[in-house]
Amino acid sequence: MQSIGVGLIGTGYMGKCHALAWNAVAPTFGDVTRRPRLVHLAEVNADLAAQKAGEFGFEKSTGHWRDVVADPEVDIVSITTPNAFHAEMAIAAMDAGKHVWCEKPMATSMADADAMLAAARRSERVTALGYNYIQNPAMRHMKALVDQGAIGAVNHIRIEMDEDFMADAKAPFGWKSEAGSGHGALDDFGVHPLSLLTVFFGRVARVVADLAKPYPSRQTADGTSRAVETADIANILFRLEDGVSGVLQLNRSAWGRKGRIAVQIFGSEGTIAFDQERMNELQIFEARGPVANQGFRTILTGPVHPPYARFVAAPGHGLGFNDLKVIEAREILKRVAGEPAHIIDFETGHSIERTVAAMARSFETGGWTDVGSS
Amino acid sequence: MQSIGVGLIGTGYMGKCHALAWNAVAPTFGDVTRRPRLVHLAEVNADLAAQKAGEFGFEKSTGHWRDVVADPEVDIVSITTPNAFHAEMAIAAMDAGKHVWCEKPMATSMADADAMLAAARRSERVTALGYNYIQNPAMRHMKALVDQGAIGAVNHIRIEMDEDFMADAKAPFGWKSEAGSGHGALDDFGVHPLSLLTVFFGRVARVVADLAKPYPSRQTADGTSRAVETADIANILFRLEDGVSGVLQLNRSAWGRKGRIAVQIFGSEGTIAFDQERMNELQIFEARGPVANQGFRTILTGPVHPPYARFVAAPGHGLGFNDLKVIEAREILKRVAGEPAHIIDFETGHSIERTVAAMARSFETGGWTDVGSS
Amino acid sequence: MQSIGVGLIGTGYMGKCHALAWNAVAPTFGDVTRRPRLVHLAEVNADLAAQKAGEFGFEKSTGHWRDVVADPEVDIVSITTPNAFHAEMAIAAMDAGKHVWCEKPMATSMADADAMLAAARRSERVTALGYNYIQNPAMRHMKALVDQGAIGAVNHIRIEMDEDFMADAKAPFGWKSEAGSGHGALDDFGVHPLSLLTVFFGRVARVVADLAKPYPSRQTADGTSRAVETADIANILFRLEDGVSGVLQLNRSAWGRKGRIAVQIFGSEGTIAFDQERMNELQIFEARGPVANQGFRTILTGPVHPPYARFVAAPGHGLGFNDLKVIEAREILKRVAGEPAHIIDFETGHSIERTVAAMARSFETGGWTDVGSS
Amino acid sequence: MQSIGVGLIGTGYMGKCHALAWNAVAPTFGDVTRRPRLVHLAEVNADLAAQKAGEFGFEKSTGHWRDVVADPEVDIVSITTPNAFHAEMAIAAMDAGKHVWCEKPMATSMADADAMLAAARRSERVTALGYNYIQNPAMRHMKALVDQGAIGAVNHIRIEMDEDFMADAKAPFGWKSEAGSGHGALDDFGVHPLSLLTVFFGRVARVVADLAKPYPSRQTADGTSRAVETADIANILFRLEDGVSGVLQLNRSAWGRKGRIAVQIFGSEGTIAFDQERMNELQIFEARGPVANQGFRTILTGPVHPPYARFVAAPGHGLGFNDLKVIEAREILKRVAGEPAHIIDFETGHSIERTVAAMARSFETGGWTDVGSS
Repeated sequence: MQSIGVGLIGTGYMGKCHALAWNAVAPTFGDVTRRPRLVHLAEVNADLAAQKAGEFGFEKSTGHWRDVVADPEVDIVSITTPNAFHAEMAIAAMDAGKHVWCEKPMATSMADADAMLAAARRSERVTALGYNYIQNPAMRHMKALVDQGAIGAVNHIRIEMDEDFMADAKAPFGWKSEAGSGHGALDDFGVHPLSLLTVFFGRVARVVADLAKPYPSRQTADGTSRAVETADIANILFRLEDGVSGVLQLNRSAWGRKGRIAVQIFGSEGTIAFDQERMNELQIFEARGPVANQGFRTILTGPVHPPYARFVAAPGHGLGFNDLKVIEAREILKRVAGEPAHIIDFETGHSIERTVAAMARSFETGGWTDVGSS
Repeated sequence: MQSIGVGLIGTGYMGKCHALAWNAVAPTFGDVTRRPRLVHLAEVNADLAAQKAGEFGFEKSTGHWRDVVADPEVDIVSITTPNAFHAEMAIAAMDAGKHVWCEKPMATSMADADAMLAAARRSERVTALGYNYIQNPAMRHMKALVDQGAIGAVNHIRIEMDEDFMADAKAPFGWKSEAGSGHGALDDFGVHPLSLLTVFFGRVARVVADLAKPYPSRQTADGTSRAVETADIANILFRLEDGVSGVLQLNRSAWGRKGRIAVQIFGSEGTIAFDQERMNELQIFEARGPVANQGFRTILTGPVHPPYARFVAAPGHGLGFNDLKVIEAREILKRVAGEPAHIIDFETGHSIERTVAAMARSFETGGWTDVGSS
Repeated sequence: MQSIGVGLIGTGYMGKCHALAWNAVAPTFGDVTRRPRLVHLAEVNADLAAQKAGEFGFEKSTGHWRDVVADPEVDIVSITTPNAFHAEMAIAAMDAGKHVWCEKPMATSMADADAMLAAARRSERVTALGYNYIQNPAMRHMKALVDQGAIGAVNHIRIEMDEDFMADAKAPFGWKSEAGSGHGALDDFGVHPLSLLTVFFGRVARVVADLAKPYPSRQTADGTSRAVETADIANILFRLEDGVSGVLQLNRSAWGRKGRIAVQIFGSEGTIAFDQERMNELQIFEARGPVANQGFRTILTGPVHPPYARFVAAPGHGLGFNDLKVIEAREILKRVAGEPAHIIDFETGHSIERTVAAMARSFETGGWTDVGSS
Repeated sequence: MQSIGVGLIGTGYMGKCHALAWNAVAPTFGDVTRRPRLVHLAEVNADLAAQKAGEFGFEKSTGHWRDVVADPEVDIVSITTPNAFHAEMAIAAMDAGKHVWCEKPMATSMADADAMLAAARRSERVTALGYNYIQNPAMRHMKALVDQGAIGAVNHIRIEMDEDFMADAKAPFGWKSEAGSGHGALDDFGVHPLSLLTVFFGRVARVVADLAKPYPSRQTADGTSRAVETADIANILFRLEDGVSGVLQLNRSAWGRKGRIAVQIFGSEGTIAFDQERMNELQIFEARGPVANQGFRTILTGPVHPPYARFVAAPGHGLGFNDLKVIEAREILKRVAGEPAHIIDFETGHSIERTVAAMARSFETGGWTDVGSS
């Protein structure tokens, strides 16, 4: 079997997640035409890089990310560093002729996103952003059901994304409360629901947003209080380009919510609901048959929901979060092989960034704001 | 035991609900100081009035509602007619010296609501609007928990209210699609979440609203198509007077939702969630104790949640929708007896109507709108 | 409208429940041909009897239950006293020509149950036992679905009934731990699942039972320890007369369970599940249509599930525990009027008692035991 | 880093699952002292063996399993062939000085299980059976909670295990309906709940069982009907050695259940519930604090529940079924390294087999049966 050389920059949470995916994709799918060969790993600390290369199974390691980008044995580069570094690394990799798999969001400024899109357009390489939630077999089945007309014409969409890592009022002031980190929940979380919306239902045309700070100030290490500069809560009313209305609710200070992405899709003949905290379940109400027997049906994913069968032969046994990244890796390999693939490339990713920017503008101006186009 | 004379105008869904409550309140609570005596019932059709009087246990019946208002044996009048009649009847009853229990919403215009409030202010009688959801022991316990600080300081509120009686795209054009019926989901549903908000968390200060029509037109009886004039979907971002942010989502075309009023209250130390479709349950997450053991706790209501014990001696056995009306009747009798009572009178009801009006204005003007004061 | 004279013996939990039902049945159903007239109430304490008569709306009260049985204005007697008194009172009432509505279980001994059955057979009056769970519209719909073949041929049944009123190990020794009160969970709870089984699926033929004591002894008031004589846990494997297998699990020391009656019915084409703690929901899995779309469907009861519409006009708004008693009262009035009715009379009730007795024998003998016939 | 040579026999569902685990265990855990080296893979078809070796990443492949057992570079052998082959292969591997990781159940006869236990006792190698459900962080946390006294003294246990792969009455007669395959649900499923029971609560002392055939006969390929020889349903009442009572319910023809292992643990101060279909959740009721606030708490697993953090850094993001096998592999590597490990070895596995055998005897003899000891 032919191989494809993989480089990895960053070995934190997402770096490990990419490493696991690169290890698992061939055994899981079997039909991968070029087997990933884990060639080169970069981490700012060279010792840590060496240790992680050993753990993850990479052949070489370095303390300089440009070594990975320059390595002729590397065909595709996984970029999993803090968001502020994405642009420089992704552009360098593309310009060096590498395919790029970059974690989301694209960048921390529209200028960077613009530059990344420009580099992608001049490159002939594959680009992909790490929006793994769209890879969930349950999500894909949701899309299939909508396309089959199971709920008729979609007329309304609600998405909530909630976690609680900023919920502790007594937690000290940290970088996520600094303006430099972005707007807060809006961009930290917003891009995920937008990835679902964009891929499954179309682009957002108009928005009105409210950003709120549950804790206006936080304690600093030296015992003083510092004003919080980001909004841990963001709510957005929106309209898609085809007029469909929706609501986006983002809260990273929502006590008790750990990985909630609760989606409700309303249609002329039914409703679909999903919650990422129960990622192997999908709920559908179909307004068909005797009224006395209608109700929300909980579908447990199984081998009939591709590509679940590649992981487990029995239904209802459950995929995990990391499995979504394996599917994503498979999709990227498809795209590299010139096959149709289900990924969010820099082109689509850029439209997501633009939508977030429009939401931020809306809050500043206090009214409905057009998203515009690239 | 002394009695209190009851008159009832209207014998539809809510008329029956009031009749059941008036029959049940004394046996259920036992400690009612004045036992309701079902004196006089009015329905436009005199024959139907007579029949319903027999079924409900009223002594007299009439085809003219003014007979009830004029009856000296009647102390309190239940008004359960279509909303457009509320103002005339309630004002007449108050001016005749009767206490008034009027179904929600107050009126179909702010002018009518203003007139009702004026009549209530000049009357010394008890006024109450039929916002029975606030009577649920689960709702009351939610309030008690918040007041005890179980979730710390409230910083965000989400309420969804969804049913599906307008969801069928093929259903013919009806009066609920006519502009004369109001704005649609906004006033049809909005007043319920607002009753919870107002009573439990305070008044709404500013709003921005989006109203949407899932079906722009519907078939008429003669086979032609008619443009729908009301919006079956309404979404509102709001701020309370104390700055707390929130989202209201209203959808009367939400297939599969039958009586959903899903509330999420986020606080600095926890979260509370409730759904009226499971009206005997309350969920609370408290950020206390070992993290490994934290989670949302489902509290089943029972005798420890007043006034559940008046209905059933065992916990988890469940109250029903009609029981809420019995509790409401008990609260009104308390107020009549000069005791503290948990009801929404015309004063508070008027502020709810005003908030709805501000939401409607926001949609017309396309931006944030102040609610103002009475 | 004609009336039917009602007598009530006992004013505790179930006495009040009957009183509420007698008050509500005519307003709720409307089509009752003979309106209940609350004639005579008995309670051992005459003062309490008078007070409760005032609260419940009875015309007369007495400290002697035989006054009620002897009252010529009384047509039907509600018996809600402790179980040990059922036999004497019910037999006296039947022999006095009254219809009898007796709370479950029939009696505390098979001899008493035998005598009650004999009295019922020689009487021409209606007898009914207070098995209200079978009146739940969700339960009735479950039966309708089974009869329509929605889940094919039933081949297995599981029922769990759990509460926690005996769960506190530190609670003092009480009468429910005395042998005189019966076997424990076996008869205290077992009769409820057996009422569902018997009415919906047929009679039990063979059983093997295990009774267990979670707390072998309890503290008494004087600080000593006393051996517990009843079993708070009972588990039974059974076969119905047609060979269908099943399991019954009863636990009155099940912390956190408040009113759980969890039913699972397995069939050749589907499965139905129900839990009384969510009494307005029914779950069904039908093995039909594309496998990818199959799942358990949660049906919320509504007006299409008789007689829900008599209580509330909108679906999903929820009935409560007390409403089941109102339906039961309606069924009894039907039977009194000579119409087909859905009740458990003394004939069927006796077979339930016999089944419990066989379970107790099984535990003593340690093996499978035949139930036998009356 | 040192390596450990891995051999794999069988490449079906479980073979792939082992292969994925061997690939993932080092990148996931990082602290593995000997990195698995995938040396030799056997599959009856040599071509398929070669293909799977390529997919899974094994260096060598063969059509003869004894090649794997004889390979000096192999230190540990994964056995994932049909159950009837386990004994011969495992004994050969142990006798060749290899560690053995054998899928469950041990064997298809007590004689085989006895021989395997004897071989394990004479070998000094590590043995492990593939009972991966015990590796779930949620299960481990359940055990920790019980050990910490969160629910007091355990007094009752219920476990249901249900799937629906035998539920289709129209499916043709297959090998799972032949007596040669075992008793049916009893051994096919029973060993899983018994693995949980044995590891977490102790050994079973006495049982009484009922086996049932939902479909007495099935169609064969030639259109005739053949009597089913195995029981797709099995129910068992049991007592642990310390007297704790319990119920085991097994149904492999339970329509709609896909991977249900529903556990309920009742204690003197609380209750714990778990369902494998929602494998990232655990429910606990603690009888502490104000009664009004008590309820079942749903704990979502997260980094605080070891070894969840090795997979994902954020809580509530979810592990999948395959991740349990990775944890199992890690535990085996610990045992190989001489460290304490959480696995079911052949000694414990044998006691599980013996318990199943006692259940089968109980059904034949119709009464309570002692499990006995090895």
